[in-house]
Amino acid sequence: MARLIDGRAIAEKVYVDLRREIAELKAKGVTPGLAVILIGDNPASRAYVRSKDKMCRELGLHSVKLELPTSTTRTELLGRVKELNRDSGIHGILVQSPPPEHIDEAAIVRALDPHKDVDGFHPENVAKLVLDDPSGFVPCTPLGVQRLLTETKVEIGGAHVVVLGRSMIVGKPLALLLMQKNQNGNATVTVVHSRSRDLAKIIRSADIVVAAIGRAEFVKADHVREGAVVIDVGINRVEDSGSARGYRLVGDVAFDEVSKKASAITPVPGGVGPMTIAMLMANTLKACRQSL
Amino acid sequence: MARLIDGRAIAEKVYVDLRREIAELKAKGVTPGLAVILIGDNPASRAYVRSKDKMCRELGLHSVKLELPTSTTRTELLGRVKELNRDSGIHGILVQSPPPEHIDEAAIVRALDPHKDVDGFHPENVAKLVLDDPSGFVPCTPLGVQRLLTETKVEIGGAHVVVLGRSMIVGKPLALLLMQKNQNGNATVTVVHSRSRDLAKIIRSADIVVAAIGRAEFVKADHVREGAVVIDVGINRVEDSGSARGYRLVGDVAFDEVSKKASAITPVPGGVGPMTIAMLMANTLKACRQSL
Repeated sequence: MARLIDGRAIAEKVYVDLRREIAELKAKGVTPGLAVILIGDNPASRAYVRSKDKMCRELGLHSVKLELPTSTTRTELLGRVKELNRDSGIHGILVQSPPPEHIDEAAIVRALDPHKDVDGFHPENVAKLVLDDPSGFVPCTPLGVQRLLTETKVEIGGAHVVVLGRSMIVGKPLALLLMQKNQNGNATVTVVHSRSRDLAKIIRSADIVVAAIGRAEFVKADHVREGAVVIDVGINRVEDSGSARGYRLVGDVAFDEVSKKASAITPVPGGVGPMTIAMLMANTLKACRQSL
Repeated sequence: MARLIDGRAIAEKVYVDLRREIAELKAKGVTPGLAVILIGDNPASRAYVRSKDKMCRELGLHSVKLELPTSTTRTELLGRVKELNRDSGIHGILVQSPPPEHIDEAAIVRALDPHKDVDGFHPENVAKLVLDDPSGFVPCTPLGVQRLLTETKVEIGGAHVVVLGRSMIVGKPLALLLMQKNQNGNATVTVVHSRSRDLAKIIRSADIVVAAIGRAEFVKADHVREGAVVIDVGINRVEDSGSARGYRLVGDVAFDEVSKKASAITPVPGGVGPMTIAMLMANTLKACRQSL
């Protein structure tokens, strides 16, 4: 039976370090600030923004929550972004995805000051990730996956990591992060996706499997070799008439069967999820530190 | 015995298309222009710049060769780059690598207008490669490797490509290019490097092997599975007392033994090399087209 990688406990450990650093900054008269822009009334986006705001408050950060109506124009939004770029009390800015359809998300991301782009999606930060430049911001979920591995003392260097999924938010940045030439990188990385042939065979050759394809319980015991480490980034709703809500949350990994074969595995929920928000807070502190 | 992938013949085929396109542009009164900046007197760099200039002239492009002394300061160089950025007769600019030690290459690349960055090293273009944005410029060698594969009718989609080497110039951009979601991408890509464990085993699982690690004849027959396609990006000098020059050029692949096992293989020289310059010309035309 696999060891459970407890994302909540590891995130708490991260917060201990962050609280110490925040206290040091405050002693110097600096309070790190994060601004989150939410456009429209997508309930899931609202919930994410609320939990980000809550965590900022718990840590004693300056938190600005900007809730704009769906009717907000691109020009208005760009104006708000520019104001926040200039605001010296704000060190990190993020625009909650997805924005309404009439807003070009890429254009908004490009308008962010790259030094405040704590989501790591600005071209400057994407390029820094490819260039192994540690001054850039790495997207929070890949960063959280890496931290789960290092905190669990999983050896990344030299290991074969198979990443399922080639999204801009998880798969590609994670692959680039883990192949970087540094002590938390140096992995051999394979990216597989919906078009890959011999998928099962390739995943079976992995020391570390990271599933980020958004397909409920896609990775089966058959896919995973005995003793592999399995990180599940997926979060999918499946119908469940036995549940009060009518659904339950499952990952991209068939947890029950895979956990019998893996040496360590993340649960869903309580694995990668809590790390994503912890890394957002860590990126905000990094932005603040770099601004001094 | 493997089929030989003839880079010179494929480059000639590319030039046929480019010549037609150049004629069309000239008929509209537009001559695509490329500026190459060479700093110092590195003999290899001089030779590269000469061959780029020669190819421009053969194709009837406007070619500017700027030869600056090693003593050139960063400020002077940035001034030259800015002039070329403004020059409407110049559509592509490249600074020949490596510049003298006192010049920060990254700063120079960032100063280039990304729309004229035909080498594809500007952060804007690196990010576009990650984002699958076809308006960006892809570095010439990876682009040449992809073209060799498509012109040879090697199926890239779904195939397992193992790239040896994680450089910014070849390994990483090639991995990103071949995993893009489009008809010349969709490969399953693994990047291996000096820190990889089980290197031979992983390379043996490849349908397509691309060697770009800069180690003479590193890839042996043992590494390659029967019928794989092998692309050799390496170009290494090895001592050879039997040669008039005292050395001969070999790739990263032990050609004699690997060619008995592969289904198709590039020679060195005459494989990837001619494609790199052809892709530089293609990128210059693309820059010109996009400027209209």
